[in-house]
Amino acid sequence: MTRSVRVGLLGCGHVGGALAQLLLDDGDAIQERTGLRLELVAVAVRSVTKERTAAVPQAVLTHDAQAVVNDSDVDVVVEVIGGIEPARGLILEALKAGKPVVTANKELLANVGAELFETAAASGVDLLFEAAVGGGIPLIRVLRESLAGERIQRVIGIVNGTTNYILTRMAEGGASYHDALAEAQGLGYAERDPTADVEGYDAAAKAAILGSIAFGIRTVAGDVYREGISELTLADVSYAARLGYVIKLLAVVERVNGDEVAVRVHPAMLPVTHPLSSVRDSFNAVFVEGDAVGELMLLGRGAGGMPTASAVLGDLIDASHNLLSGGSGRTVTLRPATIRPIDDLLSEYYLNIEVADRPGVLAAVAGVFGQHRVSIRSMEQEGLGDEARLVFITHTARESDVQACLHDLRRLDVVDRIGGMLRVVGSR
Amino acid sequence: MTRSVRVGLLGCGHVGGALAQLLLDDGDAIQERTGLRLELVAVAVRSVTKERTAAVPQAVLTHDAQAVVNDSDVDVVVEVIGGIEPARGLILEALKAGKPVVTANKELLANVGAELFETAAASGVDLLFEAAVGGGIPLIRVLRESLAGERIQRVIGIVNGTTNYILTRMAEGGASYHDALAEAQGLGYAERDPTADVEGYDAAAKAAILGSIAFGIRTVAGDVYREGISELTLADVSYAARLGYVIKLLAVVERVNGDEVAVRVHPAMLPVTHPLSSVRDSFNAVFVEGDAVGELMLLGRGAGGMPTASAVLGDLIDASHNLLSGGSGRTVTLRPATIRPIDDLLSEYYLNIEVADRPGVLAAVAGVFGQHRVSIRSMEQEGLGDEARLVFITHTARESDVQACLHDLRRLDVVDRIGGMLRVVGSR
Repeated sequence: MTRSVRVGLLGCGHVGGALAQLLLDDGDAIQERTGLRLELVAVAVRSVTKERTAAVPQAVLTHDAQAVVNDSDVDVVVEVIGGIEPARGLILEALKAGKPVVTANKELLANVGAELFETAAASGVDLLFEAAVGGGIPLIRVLRESLAGERIQRVIGIVNGTTNYILTRMAEGGASYHDALAEAQGLGYAERDPTADVEGYDAAAKAAILGSIAFGIRTVAGDVYREGISELTLADVSYAARLGYVIKLLAVVERVNGDEVAVRVHPAMLPVTHPLSSVRDSFNAVFVEGDAVGELMLLGRGAGGMPTASAVLGDLIDASHNLLSGGSGRTVTLRPATIRPIDDLLSEYYLNIEVADRPGVLAAVAGVFGQHRVSIRSMEQEGLGDEARLVFITHTARESDVQACLHDLRRLDVVDRIGGMLRVVGSR
Repeated sequence: MTRSVRVGLLGCGHVGGALAQLLLDDGDAIQERTGLRLELVAVAVRSVTKERTAAVPQAVLTHDAQAVVNDSDVDVVVEVIGGIEPARGLILEALKAGKPVVTANKELLANVGAELFETAAASGVDLLFEAAVGGGIPLIRVLRESLAGERIQRVIGIVNGTTNYILTRMAEGGASYHDALAEAQGLGYAERDPTADVEGYDAAAKAAILGSIAFGIRTVAGDVYREGISELTLADVSYAARLGYVIKLLAVVERVNGDEVAVRVHPAMLPVTHPLSSVRDSFNAVFVEGDAVGELMLLGRGAGGMPTASAVLGDLIDASHNLLSGGSGRTVTLRPATIRPIDDLLSEYYLNIEVADRPGVLAAVAGVFGQHRVSIRSMEQEGLGDEARLVFITHTARESDVQACLHDLRRLDVVDRIGGMLRVVGSR
């Protein structure tokens, strides 16, 4: 038995256009597989005359997003405008009117997610957002449903394809950061202003959502400690390889104790044997550690119109099934969280220090480490003409001690500069 | 608001014991996360006096599985006995009585799945089976829900941890097949009689389930073309590495055209850059190719009591939510399928042929290839004393042509033996 659900689409850009194309071209196949006829009845766009890739009938196009939400012919609303307003207002209105909403909007969820989840729960309708993190990777459904009974300890994600592409080109092609970035821009993987990607803002928004869903706590983008990759050098990349690591920009959300969590985004050294190390090019992946399930990794296309539209479509089918069966899926309830400051992080560290090449230097440097209770696991020394480079991996140390150590090292006469500092993630 | 669901468990071995432990030890945490109180009210076991790892109260233990199914205090039935009977009869009875069933039983689903799905649909109750393929990896839910609207073209899985451990030890440790198998047995990864794992029977059952769920067609274990890994040699493993491949035992289900599908299990050469190539040790992983989503990989623990129990628990929570909201999740409807015979497979092939080391041999061998329209992409020759080894990678060829070619090659005077034949999977 086939049943119809009428879809109102807010936004028809990259993702919205791909979704419209799927609904229009694959409607019969979707109906055969799911028993649902998903009808695209209204599409709100900025310009109704602009040529679109998807052959959306002119009759369904409108400037008026508000009218789409209020349209009594619209059963389910899909929001792919992006940004906070007007998306927030439109979604709240749809939810209050009892219409399920599917969104791909990470900024929105990472900033005002709690408000949206509460409104959805109060109205008893679905708010689904698979596409907001990891594009086509079904990680939100996995965290919310498959792992509903699981005590999750940690989620580590490569959630930004642009930076992963740049890091792959640096590691495998020996490209400098600037050349790799230019290449990514040439391929359309990076924007002309790449700040949101390379400085980790995009990943931080996704980390906030991952923290909320994995732990059921209220984390927003502003809670996330964030460093980007723009200061990374080829020297760090090649030392990483020599020491058996790969450098990746990671989003890490972890349970520290009880309801205290750490939520951070920064480049990190991952052991080459870690499953995330083999995630190359613009692929995204999320690695989950849970008490019962052990280790789990989900890998796929984290961006792109079609993969993201595929995730939206999965949500749309879910919301439609729930709507027709007269109910909604599970609600998201978020408890307040205590965010552990980065200063209290316990980690191993990679440190790359350029020093004068003369006797006694190592003793002076090691002395500073000792004063701050930072214990060295391994050291390599390399000559650089009159200078030398000392590369250390520490045992587990406290971030504030390592920072104090770096502060004092910079003041030593024999230290020319701190070449790099990276946290080690994922060693056993 | 907390609501109670009373669980009847059939079987309390490896997986059942782990599930019982999760329900008893983590009951409060599960309740906090899900709003569900999952009460273990009856457990059917073979011996009620045998010591169990999970501290299951004696009062809930019984010999009588039938009584557990019929018990009016049991809301949901979990079947982890394994095998076809009595599991099949018990599950049918539970479904007909309107009780949702969660099962981890791959033999059952791979042989009489269609009957079970039809009964569940007719009764309007859930039959969930996440744990039947890939242990703790949430791939069934991803295929059924996240990818419900997706046109899937191919699923490639490493779905047997024992053989993946053996192949990893051969590739990375230089162990012979027999030494690696003995090691796997020592670690408890392989049974004393390893036939079901090493000859691919376990993977074939899982391939049948993957085919059914990915394509919505009726495939049973008997439909699956199957080869194991017991004939693999270290020579093949090292040639694979030299040529840029890794050998894995793969379950492949693919859409060939329309409703015709190919379902097969065999060792294959995978390019080292393929995401499945980095799946090491006893990990399982499934790689999905879909029209919109592109490429997706799910990796995790394919076996073990706790990871498998985690998947069962996710299903149990799902079934309980659906039961309390007065409905059921989506049903599985399977269409009849046309299975493409292995003879019609189109693939690249790796061939390793031991020949006499004398002039004209290559010409004779190449002549046989030509007669059967098998075109060579690359060839390497290695001296072996009086003999030589010719290693070929073919262009795409038809399986029946390659088999005819091998048949004729065996009859050539200059050919001593065919050392190995492997299909290449996952090259672009």
